[in-house]
Amino acid sequence: MSQTPHAKRLARLQQLLQEADIDAVALNASPTLTYLTGLEVHLSERPVVGIFPASGKPALVLPELETGKLASLPVALEAFPYGENPDAWPDAFAQALRFCGLTRAQLGVEPQWFRFLELRLLEKAAPEVRVTSAEPVIMRLRSQKDAAEVAATRRALDVAWRALEATLPVIRPGVTERDVAAELTLQLLRAGSDPALPFSPIVAFGPESANPHAVPGDRPLTPPTLILIDWGARVEGYCADLTRMFAFGPLDDELDRIVQIVLEANEAARARVAPSVPAGEVDRAARQVIEQAGYGPYFIHRTGHGLGLEIHEPPYIRGDNSELLAPGMLFTIEPGIYLTGHGGARVEDDVLVTETGAETLSDYPRTLRRLD
Amino acid sequence: MSQTPHAKRLARLQQLLQEADIDAVALNASPTLTYLTGLEVHLSERPVVGIFPASGKPALVLPELETGKLASLPVALEAFPYGENPDAWPDAFAQALRFCGLTRAQLGVEPQWFRFLELRLLEKAAPEVRVTSAEPVIMRLRSQKDAAEVAATRRALDVAWRALEATLPVIRPGVTERDVAAELTLQLLRAGSDPALPFSPIVAFGPESANPHAVPGDRPLTPPTLILIDWGARVEGYCADLTRMFAFGPLDDELDRIVQIVLEANEAARARVAPSVPAGEVDRAARQVIEQAGYGPYFIHRTGHGLGLEIHEPPYIRGDNSELLAPGMLFTIEPGIYLTGHGGARVEDDVLVTETGAETLSDYPRTLRRLD
Repeated sequence: MSQTPHAKRLARLQQLLQEADIDAVALNASPTLTYLTGLEVHLSERPVVGIFPASGKPALVLPELETGKLASLPVALEAFPYGENPDAWPDAFAQALRFCGLTRAQLGVEPQWFRFLELRLLEKAAPEVRVTSAEPVIMRLRSQKDAAEVAATRRALDVAWRALEATLPVIRPGVTERDVAAELTLQLLRAGSDPALPFSPIVAFGPESANPHAVPGDRPLTPPTLILIDWGARVEGYCADLTRMFAFGPLDDELDRIVQIVLEANEAARARVAPSVPAGEVDRAARQVIEQAGYGPYFIHRTGHGLGLEIHEPPYIRGDNSELLAPGMLFTIEPGIYLTGHGGARVEDDVLVTETGAETLSDYPRTLRRLD
Repeated sequence: MSQTPHAKRLARLQQLLQEADIDAVALNASPTLTYLTGLEVHLSERPVVGIFPASGKPALVLPELETGKLASLPVALEAFPYGENPDAWPDAFAQALRFCGLTRAQLGVEPQWFRFLELRLLEKAAPEVRVTSAEPVIMRLRSQKDAAEVAATRRALDVAWRALEATLPVIRPGVTERDVAAELTLQLLRAGSDPALPFSPIVAFGPESANPHAVPGDRPLTPPTLILIDWGARVEGYCADLTRMFAFGPLDDELDRIVQIVLEANEAARARVAPSVPAGEVDRAARQVIEQAGYGPYFIHRTGHGLGLEIHEPPYIRGDNSELLAPGMLFTIEPGIYLTGHGGARVEDDVLVTETGAETLSDYPRTLRRLD
């Protein structure tokens, strides 16, 4: 009898939990919950928590009004629904923990998802439960993508690129960052992105490009100017994430030069990706290029981040990360140089670790593109 | 010297903290942090935490790469930036707590926003800090909207309604729920919504409408059918939230009847809204109409929720909520009846408590609309 994809994922989680000596994980409405159960719910004031013991049937605590979603799930979960009065919620948690035999267990949670709301409910339901980070287990569970996950990422990249091409014609003098970001958002949806974009596009003109997480504003495009666009798409839940550089009119020498340096750093880092290479070495490959060009202090972030159901997830491509890359890992390579008050440059690709080396899934043109 | 809006908000928070005998609140990247500081950051794996003591200057722990956003903020914050290596993060938290004199304090947090990630960092930085829920303080801080907040909500409603009208022509036999939801999303952005919609539109055909949080699927429209659309827009951060019912072809008597009953329940609840009325009475006004019609067990959720910078926030319009309504409170009224396997009906409006009664900000047509 062959296992369904979701049953395989659950079996793998249980194996990882046994290896890590954690009794169970408690997952709130996070991408990992969707990964394991197919359930799509959003974080809200009504907690949804799946409890996955290292062996046995998982339990799900959820609002009564969400129980209609259970019938079509590809996995069997014991449901513990609760009503609208929060006073009764701890009892639903207590029942679920008892069902799983976990009233004094060590429970792993996802630090970036599990909230004070759910922690307090667990504590009220079972004061003897100890909570710990399940991050290493979840990282091992999700970081090596299977063929279907990679295929969805490829489709998301295709959507992202087509949306960019459809957007570029609106970039003319006088247009604002916000206008361009809105048009790109429209085009992403039209090209077929899931409605929940991984993030709102970053469109930064001139000096604003020196802010790595710039928020598009009402600055009108005044040539000559450097333009940074960092955008993403999502298909079947999987994220694509790209950054490309543009110019309207001729740039001064230093801006031209920093774009050229980040291109070389991007290339050097991508060339270093292969199985069994420590993540930190990929970061160092990029950083070395930028340091040798004299811009080391202006590369103020890590070289990249994993992506998948989340736009930022392990592995993080950071100099001090000794974790070894493995086939199926998928992450960004996005070195940058940021000169406050002048301008910034970043070129970002999405790279897959293969059995023998690496494949750049986003192999689209990456040199500075003049739009005038 | 007149205070800026943000300085006023901070002063009010400090007064509320003193009244509640809480030493400080610690806010991560939440709408309340934006409300108090104007800072726009997203929840991510890099924590951003503002620490607001009951008196004195607030502190902000943030990644170095976000510090570019500080110069333009309308408030003064003492910044404690950290680099990319997480091992150094607890130290930034420790410094910020020392700066505020809070190494043994009682710190309030927002249960729905503050995560295990930030809690663990606070614990490492200051093991003697005790963490508690600041929910009542934050609710009092934000629940009575000022004129600018109400004006933004009105604009969000206008955007939402124009987007709906632009979408309805695509609803023809054969179109899928997903198609309609994608078109509505496009139209919302085109009409001027902030790119971060409060939620992805719910479009549910036929029996699917009996699922209050239905996810649009690939079901094609096959007349005759009931259609539920629940959608929202966001302007300057403020949310609008609406539900209306449609039909393609004639409906059976029971579906016609449940739409009629929720319309009456919606009207009865809106008529009950006024200052000093307990929130629970508004819920009971809606519930009574539905119970008297014999559908009580099929109204499986509360009557409404507050809205503002968050799509769901206090006050919650729930039978057991004795909290008194006050001018400036803004919430949905959205009774529903859900008949599994057959169909569901919900009609949702956004209502403002005024000095003398209430104003329905979403006073658009609400009767069942035939689209054929």
